[in-house]
Amino acid sequence: MWRLYHFTLCPFSRKVRFALAVKGVTHELVQERPWEKRPEFTAMNPAGQTPVMRRSDLGGTDLILCDSVAITEHFEEALERTPLLGATPEARAETRRLVAWFDQKFYAEVNAPLLAERMYKRAVLKGAPDGGMIRQAGRMADMHLDYIDFLLERRAWISGGQFGLADIAAAAHLSVADYLAGLEWDGHEPAKTWYSAIKSRPTFRPLLAERLEGLPPPPHYDKLDF
Amino acid sequence: MWRLYHFTLCPFSRKVRFALAVKGVTHELVQERPWEKRPEFTAMNPAGQTPVMRRSDLGGTDLILCDSVAITEHFEEALERTPLLGATPEARAETRRLVAWFDQKFYAEVNAPLLAERMYKRAVLKGAPDGGMIRQAGRMADMHLDYIDFLLERRAWISGGQFGLADIAAAAHLSVADYLAGLEWDGHEPAKTWYSAIKSRPTFRPLLAERLEGLPPPPHYDKLDF
Ligand SMILES: N[C@@H](CCC(=O)N[C@@H](CS)C(=O)NCC(=O)O)C(=O)O
Ligand SMILES: N[C@@H](CCC(=O)N[C@@H](CS)C(=O)NCC(=O)O)C(=O)O
Repeated sequence: MWRLYHFTLCPFSRKVRFALAVKGVTHELVQERPWEKRPEFTAMNPAGQTPVMRRSDLGGTDLILCDSVAITEHFEEALERTPLLGATPEARAETRRLVAWFDQKFYAEVNAPLLAERMYKRAVLKGAPDGGMIRQAGRMADMHLDYIDFLLERRAWISGGQFGLADIAAAAHLSVADYLAGLEWDGHEPAKTWYSAIKSRPTFRPLLAERLEGLPPPPHYDKLDF
Repeated sequence: MWRLYHFTLCPFSRKVRFALAVKGVTHELVQERPWEKRPEFTAMNPAGQTPVMRRSDLGGTDLILCDSVAITEHFEEALERTPLLGATPEARAETRRLVAWFDQKFYAEVNAPLLAERMYKRAVLKGAPDGGMIRQAGRMADMHLDYIDFLLERRAWISGGQFGLADIAAAAHLSVADYLAGLEWDGHEPAKTWYSAIKSRPTFRPLLAERLEGLPPPPHYDKLDF
């Protein structure tokens, strides 16, 4: 049995959850607040970060997977069904480039400041967010939506001709920014049409149904028409 | 013919160069200063970051690979010789976890501040570095050397039983920190013995021979006995 240690508003956890749902990997969920640095958790992942996956039904030592890229690459190798990286070297390179784009650039420029100001400061420290940081994250989010529009004017999916891991990574990161009221969708029709299609997928809907106590998302968050 | 756009003190470029040398992929080097954001460079990689690889002898469209993880995964798939990720799912997960550790944690905690203060501020802006930032990077570097010691007291290589991509990533990142005088090796015997073995490899020596004009490394930098 696989167990996934995740945090509801962790975009890397969401990327793994969406990918596991698409690939049909059943798993148990364990909610982990990574900033608490539980000793049992850092014993599994010395980086102290979500997501972590652990398989315990193997008889021998448990298989522990840390880091969302190591996790998704593992399941690409282990399960041939529903390949998410693409069929050609070009497609795979482009998918991996964009996954890194969202995991690193979008995360650093948009989600890390939003999570620090709107989630951690508010829900954990009970303090006031820094408006300047939030406005700057909003400006960066708008540039990212422009780039997504640019891509979707040239291809059917963010990954390319087919839905794939770059769409999953983009949806995971955007959904966290959207939960934290960091996205202004008006004027981004291609991105909106794409995200509406993602939101209607049964493999994505469970993510949209989750709430963090004391921190509700804006009303449009789980609507197909937003 | 493959061409690699790299920057001498970019640890991600060094990781790719060391991996290509071990796998025997011949390539041309082009020195790129990523902060200059040359339009021809950002046309290849919208993230504007080194490393980028481009293959131009295919007749059709050039194959462009952006992001060091996408590049190393590409060559693992394309060339079966000298596998660098490990043979079992456990070994591959552990190697990818540690590559992410060095690319993200070591980079953010040690190399990003050292590169900003000692390379960019000094060599590009001609300004004075922030001593507090450099001391903090040094403290983090020491914790990373402790972790490397811990691993090497339990296994032959950082990747596990065999030399692999985690050793390459670690050597790439450590060599940049060492060039920027950010590492205090005393008291880290396991890490020192391992790094001395890495330094003696003919596939790594060309990296150690390179210099950035106006920014010499400390005298011990390319010595086997340090
Ligand atoms: N490279 C990791 C990044 C994971 C990450 O940054 N997780 C965040 C939550 S979104 C975390 O656990 N932060 C706590 C910390 O870094 O101490 C991955 O792709 O899984
Ligand atoms: N995820 C990228 C990171 C590459 C990276 O951060 N490169 C730095 C140089 S060490 C860079 O180009 N920085 C310029 C910038 O980010 O604008 C990779 O693994 O290749």
